[in-house]
Amino acid sequence: MLADLFELPYYAVIFSTIRTEGDNGYEAMAEKMANLAATMPGYLGAESARSDIGITVSYWKDLESIRHWKYQSDHVMARDLGREQWYKCYRLRVAKVERAYGF
Amino acid sequence: MLADLFELPYYAVIFSTIRTEGDNGYEAMAEKMANLAATMPGYLGAESARSDIGITVSYWKDLESIRHWKYQSDHVMARDLGREQWYKCYRLRVAKVERAYGF
Repeated sequence: MLADLFELPYYAVIFSTIRTEGDNGYEAMAEKMANLAATMPGYLGAESARSDIGITVSYWKDLESIRHWKYQSDHVMARDLGREQWYKCYRLRVAKVERAYGF
Repeated sequence: MLADLFELPYYAVIFSTIRTEGDNGYEAMAEKMANLAATMPGYLGAESARSDIGITVSYWKDLESIRHWKYQSDHVMARDLGREQWYKCYRLRVAKVERAYGF
């Protein structure tokens, strides 16, 4: 459930959120978007956790892959719903992974 | 509880983990290390969530600050305990944040 280390360099999209109350269709859409992202060119993997806040980090081959995913049409609709209904606030950071290790 | 957007560029340390069973002193040490990190030069902020896996992202001014924190002596001891007792596996990625937005 941890993402592989992948070949450097690659990109991480760090998406941290605070949810609104109630589900309002969020869980089903989150699963749908995770599955859809995994079919996109340049997608490498993702990690996700939620307690007081949610953090999802998705990993991508390059900036072009991230841009492509950002403007995928179903994802654009989901992002609009996110801003309108599901998230009190969020931060999205795009970062170039320069070093990675683990066990 | 979400970290600020900060002035670009800066660095993210993405630490994702799967825990062993039981606490074994983990929670107390995690809190101690979070408090200690916040006193280090170049520390900007952090975000943390845990469900099936744990993800902690800490944000730093530059690579020098991250290196300084990596070799802080209490942190070195905590890292050893982490590998020996608390984590089944982990990944640590150092990434340069190039873009950031949110609401």
